[in-house]
Amino acid sequence: MKKVLSVLLIAVFLVFPLLNHAQKARFPETKQLQSPQNPRLGFVIHGGAGVIRRGDLSPEKEKEYRAKLEEALMAGYKALQQGKTALDAVQIAINLLEDSPLFNAGKGAVFTHDGKNELDSAIMDGKDLRAGAVAGLRHVKNPINLARAVMEKSPHVMMVGDGAEQFAREQNIELVPEKYFFTQERWDALQNILKQEREKTAKDGKKVSQLDLREEPYNKFGTVGAVALDKDGNLAAGTSTGGMTNKKYGRVGDAPIIGAGTYANNLTCAVSATGWGEFFIRLGVARDISAMMEYSAAPIQQAVDAVIHQKLQKAGGDGGVIAIDKFGNIGVSFNSEGMYRAYVDINGKPVVKIYKD
Amino acid sequence: MKKVLSVLLIAVFLVFPLLNHAQKARFPETKQLQSPQNPRLGFVIHGGAGVIRRGDLSPEKEKEYRAKLEEALMAGYKALQQGKTALDAVQIAINLLEDSPLFNAGKGAVFTHDGKNELDSAIMDGKDLRAGAVAGLRHVKNPINLARAVMEKSPHVMMVGDGAEQFAREQNIELVPEKYFFTQERWDALQNILKQEREKTAKDGKKVSQLDLREEPYNKFGTVGAVALDKDGNLAAGTSTGGMTNKKYGRVGDAPIIGAGTYANNLTCAVSATGWGEFFIRLGVARDISAMMEYSAAPIQQAVDAVIHQKLQKAGGDGGVIAIDKFGNIGVSFNSEGMYRAYVDINGKPVVKIYKD
Repeated sequence: MKKVLSVLLIAVFLVFPLLNHAQKARFPETKQLQSPQNPRLGFVIHGGAGVIRRGDLSPEKEKEYRAKLEEALMAGYKALQQGKTALDAVQIAINLLEDSPLFNAGKGAVFTHDGKNELDSAIMDGKDLRAGAVAGLRHVKNPINLARAVMEKSPHVMMVGDGAEQFAREQNIELVPEKYFFTQERWDALQNILKQEREKTAKDGKKVSQLDLREEPYNKFGTVGAVALDKDGNLAAGTSTGGMTNKKYGRVGDAPIIGAGTYANNLTCAVSATGWGEFFIRLGVARDISAMMEYSAAPIQQAVDAVIHQKLQKAGGDGGVIAIDKFGNIGVSFNSEGMYRAYVDINGKPVVKIYKD
Repeated sequence: MKKVLSVLLIAVFLVFPLLNHAQKARFPETKQLQSPQNPRLGFVIHGGAGVIRRGDLSPEKEKEYRAKLEEALMAGYKALQQGKTALDAVQIAINLLEDSPLFNAGKGAVFTHDGKNELDSAIMDGKDLRAGAVAGLRHVKNPINLARAVMEKSPHVMMVGDGAEQFAREQNIELVPEKYFFTQERWDALQNILKQEREKTAKDGKKVSQLDLREEPYNKFGTVGAVALDKDGNLAAGTSTGGMTNKKYGRVGDAPIIGAGTYANNLTCAVSATGWGEFFIRLGVARDISAMMEYSAAPIQQAVDAVIHQKLQKAGGDGGVIAIDKFGNIGVSFNSEGMYRAYVDINGKPVVKIYKD
């Protein structure tokens, strides 16, 4: 009997290290999650990923970016402290980023090939997986507000184009003339690309379309987004974007695709992405990060790194994500040169970053 | 030494049954997958899920449905036998279903609130995760053809509305006048819903919009789709739909959302969905089935059943999916009354079903 017991005891000591080892082998840097008995508030935002190298930004411009990121971060975090929902915090922060001409969302959105602005956005509630998404907007000042109205005031998840704007009018969502979105910098960026297209067309003797410029790195970034954990343990994610400069054909990127650029699920995490949207749609980046946590019990940082540095990298895409789990653990990962991002640290202090660490 | 060995031996016998038990507990009906050394061709199609009870269809109508499903199935399967790709088979079968007025895709699409047809479609190549998706089309005869052109002839994944149709013109995709899509039956279905709205508005003394009719079961089904495995072991999935009768506001359902209604990945499976699209988007149904196979090694039938009968059911949604894995194993699951579906069995014979087994 004693022998049987000792065998059992030894077996138990053998079983658990083995199981533990299997887990660690898959995610070598496994770190301790916070106790589910001690949830905390959590808030992370991004202002786009791309080729942002030290020295590219003037000191003044860098200061502007940092100040606006910190303002949006702390406005959302303050809302959480006041007991507002994760959805509210996400919307408040994104509204500030949409209203700033610094970011490619709302005011300051990039221009399409036809010299228009076409805005996309999505929001998702991790509590009940409700979601709202809008694409191809031309007159909605704050696309994330319309995405939330689609989620809360309609039986639908996604609305596009004129139909979405008709819904916006019925819901008293603020509409603005097209010229509201204009910024000289974004206009010049479009003219620069169009000039390159013309020059290449003249040189090669055949018409060059946007299709031939897919390698250009500067025209596919800039989205803003936020993820939050509120006092009730609910997660939310939101994303808003002007898409890519010189886009044609009613192109829709990953931001308004639930599961690609935006996803939230209280069981796992909330994610907002930014980058080369086509790759994020094909990989289902946000949904995959959540699935990795759901089915493999991957800690959040390992999940975001696995999807960005392995799958996205291998596929040839670039960009990044911010994520937060139900315990307030944060995951941030990008394979681009830089990503405008900010989070509230464990002491409630803002941390703003632009470049690689 | 002998004692240590016997302890180790006992431990091993304890560990493996435990691990095996954990796997079986999650997927109790685990069945043997085919050997990867013996891949076979595989082809499954659907023509929509919904309230289809025995006796609802006249014998003549049922015969028509069965004949068209078998025709589309065998056309795609024959293409696979001739060495064509999974993408080709998917497109061939869906073209036949789009051209048939029996199904809610292409000719025979349902009408929007404004009496128009707005068509959505997507296709995905499991080999390299390339994908194409289109939404809000009004003049494209075969939306799946445009989805494939977006995938193969553009750097984008998704195009919507007029922009997508501009791309169609440039790619010589066949365009038709709006009246091509007209069928009396779909028109009458819209008039019937509009009449109900008017009557309800008169009775309640306040305006009733589509939002109040979200419970109506008959206006949210009908999509067609196909999944295939070709001789090279490549998977593909495609879906095409007219969406829901009486839809407004540029509503987009799950069919053109990569990861929701359509997904293919050679590592796991190809999936096409049909049903109440909003739930399929929120749950990321197709992507989730793939993730369950990727991270939990779930066999395909267990994966589709877990997502449809547990997650979708719990969320309150309804509909179904067809799926195929890299070994040719088929997964079919739906929680609606019926689903038009057909597959080629292991002897190469067509099997066509409409009702629950």
